[in-house]
Amino acid sequence: MKAARLYEYDPAMNVQLKIEDVPPPTINGPNEVVVKVGAAGLCRTDLHIIEGVWKDIMDAEGSLLPYIMGHENAGWVEDVGSNVTSVKPGDAVICHPLSTCGVCLNCRYGHDMYCEHGKFPGLGLNGGFAEYFVTSERSLIKLNPNIMPLDVAPMADAGITAYRAAKRAAGLLRPGAYCTILGVGGLGHIALQCLTQISGCRTIAVDREPGAQKLAKELGADHVLDGGPDLIEQVKEITGGGSHVVIDFVGELGVENICWKLLRQGGELIVVGYGGTIEIPTLEFVVNEIKIGGSLVGDYTELVELMELNADGKVKMHYSRYGLDQINTAIDDFKNRRFTGRGVIVP
Amino acid sequence: MKAARLYEYDPAMNVQLKIEDVPPPTINGPNEVVVKVGAAGLCRTDLHIIEGVWKDIMDAEGSLLPYIMGHENAGWVEDVGSNVTSVKPGDAVICHPLSTCGVCLNCRYGHDMYCEHGKFPGLGLNGGFAEYFVTSERSLIKLNPNIMPLDVAPMADAGITAYRAAKRAAGLLRPGAYCTILGVGGLGHIALQCLTQISGCRTIAVDREPGAQKLAKELGADHVLDGGPDLIEQVKEITGGGSHVVIDFVGELGVENICWKLLRQGGELIVVGYGGTIEIPTLEFVVNEIKIGGSLVGDYTELVELMELNADGKVKMHYSRYGLDQINTAIDDFKNRRFTGRGVIVP
Amino acid sequence: MKAARLYEYDPAMNVQLKIEDVPPPTINGPNEVVVKVGAAGLCRTDLHIIEGVWKDIMDAEGSLLPYIMGHENAGWVEDVGSNVTSVKPGDAVICHPLSTCGVCLNCRYGHDMYCEHGKFPGLGLNGGFAEYFVTSERSLIKLNPNIMPLDVAPMADAGITAYRAAKRAAGLLRPGAYCTILGVGGLGHIALQCLTQISGCRTIAVDREPGAQKLAKELGADHVLDGGPDLIEQVKEITGGGSHVVIDFVGELGVENICWKLLRQGGELIVVGYGGTIEIPTLEFVVNEIKIGGSLVGDYTELVELMELNADGKVKMHYSRYGLDQINTAIDDFKNRRFTGRGVIVP
Amino acid sequence: MKAARLYEYDPAMNVQLKIEDVPPPTINGPNEVVVKVGAAGLCRTDLHIIEGVWKDIMDAEGSLLPYIMGHENAGWVEDVGSNVTSVKPGDAVICHPLSTCGVCLNCRYGHDMYCEHGKFPGLGLNGGFAEYFVTSERSLIKLNPNIMPLDVAPMADAGITAYRAAKRAAGLLRPGAYCTILGVGGLGHIALQCLTQISGCRTIAVDREPGAQKLAKELGADHVLDGGPDLIEQVKEITGGGSHVVIDFVGELGVENICWKLLRQGGELIVVGYGGTIEIPTLEFVVNEIKIGGSLVGDYTELVELMELNADGKVKMHYSRYGLDQINTAIDDFKNRRFTGRGVIVP
Repeated sequence: MKAARLYEYDPAMNVQLKIEDVPPPTINGPNEVVVKVGAAGLCRTDLHIIEGVWKDIMDAEGSLLPYIMGHENAGWVEDVGSNVTSVKPGDAVICHPLSTCGVCLNCRYGHDMYCEHGKFPGLGLNGGFAEYFVTSERSLIKLNPNIMPLDVAPMADAGITAYRAAKRAAGLLRPGAYCTILGVGGLGHIALQCLTQISGCRTIAVDREPGAQKLAKELGADHVLDGGPDLIEQVKEITGGGSHVVIDFVGELGVENICWKLLRQGGELIVVGYGGTIEIPTLEFVVNEIKIGGSLVGDYTELVELMELNADGKVKMHYSRYGLDQINTAIDDFKNRRFTGRGVIVP
Repeated sequence: MKAARLYEYDPAMNVQLKIEDVPPPTINGPNEVVVKVGAAGLCRTDLHIIEGVWKDIMDAEGSLLPYIMGHENAGWVEDVGSNVTSVKPGDAVICHPLSTCGVCLNCRYGHDMYCEHGKFPGLGLNGGFAEYFVTSERSLIKLNPNIMPLDVAPMADAGITAYRAAKRAAGLLRPGAYCTILGVGGLGHIALQCLTQISGCRTIAVDREPGAQKLAKELGADHVLDGGPDLIEQVKEITGGGSHVVIDFVGELGVENICWKLLRQGGELIVVGYGGTIEIPTLEFVVNEIKIGGSLVGDYTELVELMELNADGKVKMHYSRYGLDQINTAIDDFKNRRFTGRGVIVP
Repeated sequence: MKAARLYEYDPAMNVQLKIEDVPPPTINGPNEVVVKVGAAGLCRTDLHIIEGVWKDIMDAEGSLLPYIMGHENAGWVEDVGSNVTSVKPGDAVICHPLSTCGVCLNCRYGHDMYCEHGKFPGLGLNGGFAEYFVTSERSLIKLNPNIMPLDVAPMADAGITAYRAAKRAAGLLRPGAYCTILGVGGLGHIALQCLTQISGCRTIAVDREPGAQKLAKELGADHVLDGGPDLIEQVKEITGGGSHVVIDFVGELGVENICWKLLRQGGELIVVGYGGTIEIPTLEFVVNEIKIGGSLVGDYTELVELMELNADGKVKMHYSRYGLDQINTAIDDFKNRRFTGRGVIVP
Repeated sequence: MKAARLYEYDPAMNVQLKIEDVPPPTINGPNEVVVKVGAAGLCRTDLHIIEGVWKDIMDAEGSLLPYIMGHENAGWVEDVGSNVTSVKPGDAVICHPLSTCGVCLNCRYGHDMYCEHGKFPGLGLNGGFAEYFVTSERSLIKLNPNIMPLDVAPMADAGITAYRAAKRAAGLLRPGAYCTILGVGGLGHIALQCLTQISGCRTIAVDREPGAQKLAKELGADHVLDGGPDLIEQVKEITGGGSHVVIDFVGELGVENICWKLLRQGGELIVVGYGGTIEIPTLEFVVNEIKIGGSLVGDYTELVELMELNADGKVKMHYSRYGLDQINTAIDDFKNRRFTGRGVIVP
């Protein structure tokens, strides 16, 4: 099969993936499934993998390369292990990124991302920047009728990460309350749509990029701000004292220490983006009774729910399409923000 | 002032309200407020009052008549007691129907409707089918700018009763789950709009009236059914085994023993309409692990939230307007279902 | 191996189980586990199986007999399928009664009992009234150190059914609120202990049997009543208007229509016992805003939690021990209420 | 009446309160209540008031002195305003520290501490280190029979602050999960008791003082640690990877940046003590999906609930008693940790 493989880590990111022919993967366990890739989203994590940021975690022994990335996958079932009953060859599916054991206590509580034996194709195991990849039955969701893999692939990771944060926010937001979203990129534009659909709150979208601001307006944000130096005052004025919830998709570049100042008393900050360090007096926590919490990739059931919103036409992924042999161009465009929404690779 | 007064109970409802001049109400306590009525919704409970159904509860001593009904009121503050600080004459307000003490433990938990000392203008005390009526500070919500009393009066009772049920339902409904609404009248059409706004669920609206079915479609119901003899099969087929939540705005005429059969395993029925008697084997409760719960008039904060949804243009009351001197016509039209949505009286 | 087998259904229950030698079960799938039975609880459902009540459901084709009952099992792992990794031969385990698929959406939400492919050893498949029985990896919980199978076997079904109800109740009960427990038998005495441990509420235990009343007092019930004709008045007086939560472990014999009359406004009835039919006006639901919901066997994680309470010495099963060859005596004693708590069979 | 008054702020705390005769307070509004002080708890905040830390907030104009402190009060109703109906002279009461309006939206949601018009006797208004002080009807809770003001006064502030944190923790803790309590002083020893009563979790109590460690053991902590340099390793070992919840009653002296390292994935830190600054990488928030939130003084209903636990003998305040004329000794003993639990002043 055709696959894009990484041959060396390069912090400067001057390296190119090689498009080459490799043997397709095969079934090696009763619960495994080979998926014919229909589309695979390009994620900022992929850039970090190329840079070598993940080397110590996913390639400690240094034997992983040459390596196939790609962890936002959708496609069609090609082959199944002996114990698989819920899908059959030909079924169109989207793949939760983590392949979970289903037996450990975290799995039993539905906390998929805390699985004690999880495997992550595209992050240590070969992933979806290829014609086929292997995952397991428990990571698959059959697509609703009339939904094509190309239209949803990045929902598998970017989508549910945004949905998980939006769902938590919605649980905190009564009608008339405000949610401020910092960063309207691949994740933020999904969170904005989800909030509008599952909550009666008002939304304030913040992004420095005019393209992202325009998208936020089209998606129905009640207020769109450019994140200038008056941000705190602007949000306090609009909200009458502070936002009830803030979702920070940036998490660095100074945003991490502005975001919690946007909250009102009793408010909650949901941290999705990362990189920076939050410094906050305990007095601030107590007197204003605010809360700050991180949010990871969503669970399997959250991907199910997001796919239902998508099937109902309520939440859509904005993306640009690239062929597998254009993947180096896609990566270059991503680095230089030449597209909005998500870049998607089609093998 | 002009007021419509009831002079006798009549189970046959052949009696007419008298429009006459009476002395306007005055302030008798530090927390009281006189409201100049802008509009007052006509409720089925008013018909029951005329029929004498409420006589034993609200007029035990038989000294209440002649009596002014009307408990869905909005208008402008006319006069305030010595302790009132949150509103002043001229403020446009909507009035939660119950005047609560704010001191009993139920009030402290926010359960307004369980207040141990609640007073109910329009249900035992003179109400809003007049130019002025008296309530108390804690029942008032200032209207959002640009909102007129006429457009929202029935939100005060019909609206929040529907919103309370919809809000409880929303807490139970993930995207892709189904909520079936039985009865798309003055309450049901509000519940339908609320659900669409605060939840990502799918809705099935059921009503025998073609006018109500049409309204349900316009308001975005995913499925509209006529409540014929195949209802259970239809709902099971649409939902793949049963509705996750059912809200019953009828509660009588046999509907009360169909509604819980529409549920799937783990589902919940919310009962708002009443009149009939539910008969259900305990085995049914246990094996299907279903839940049935009644829902009363909403709390004060629920009216606040509903008014925010209304201010944002997300939920609107459909109504027909009548002058105070047309109130007997309005009652007659109501009895004979000559209008859809709610009838509203403007003094 | 030795096993107790049922050879015919008998509504009069004059039939005896036969203790005989049968071939032990073997592994037939990658996730299966053979458990050497340490102890197996005797459940009222077993009596119903003998009476033929379950025949249509679990033996529709009439080919099940001779049959080994027993669905409250604990013991030691004897053999494991090729895919099993979380337990190994020799491990002491308790067995959740349902063997679940782990793949269907209900399983993914943690609703084990709604599994679309669940198998129930002891209810259609051979169970634990034998030296060995077969279940699957996902139904097993390793016992905490120093816990013996004999001491916990009935926790597997009776225990978690009680715990599930108590846990739901605890979520509704603030300190000072009241929970009334109807029936202090094998389930009720566990629910009482759980409530005391996980909630700050006050408890009212009701049972007609002096032995059960005595046990309730020993286990710390705040009030113990005999369920006489004044029950409603007694509960209203103790609670100042009604119980916040009622758990009904009886569900028949008239109790089913007394239990909801014990509730205060806003209260909730949890139905565990069954047999009778509840008749309740919708008006009662609405005006008092009460809720009635059934509660099934607990989920796997609920059994995990209950075993932690047990390991900490907070919740204990009261039982009487019988050898496998005394099983007919045990059944007879159970029918005639000759023991309190649970009867347990040790092969 | 006799009162202890502060005549000057002194960062060195060498100043003494003067015990002198002053005119007793009188009723000035329809909702006011004069309380005859039975006992008043001494709080660390009182020390900060003397030091002048609160000067800018509660005495901006510099006209407050001479001033009567004391905000943890219980006693008997002496006189009531014209609108007061729920208490009468002679009733034994405990006083929630904040006198709230009951009308603003925060009050309506039950968030007493966010009241937009709250008044705080003992923090800007004269408080309870005197024979009488004034508060309002909405701050009063009648004591359960047989409960004396002396035994509960510090529950009014220290108690509910601990209870609020413990209640939030209990909502996050299943049986078998771990809660680590940092600091077993006036607040921590109450939180420990509450957790044991309303949750089935396991507790780890941490304090450097042998007296506090001894108290923690007596109150049933499952593990007691001295907070030495191995704390993180000790907690990770006991808990098998980290505590599910941590409550930090210290919040300074370096503890603020150890506490969140005690959490497991998905864990939550509740911050009550303050003074230090938390520094935490956003990556830590996201990868471990932890949450950090401040917790303020509890709401009125939380004081009601705590008093119920107290009435049931489940939670007790440990205290040392001082006469009003010994108040300077009490302050000195407090500064030098000469007593455990709380110091209480009896006028």
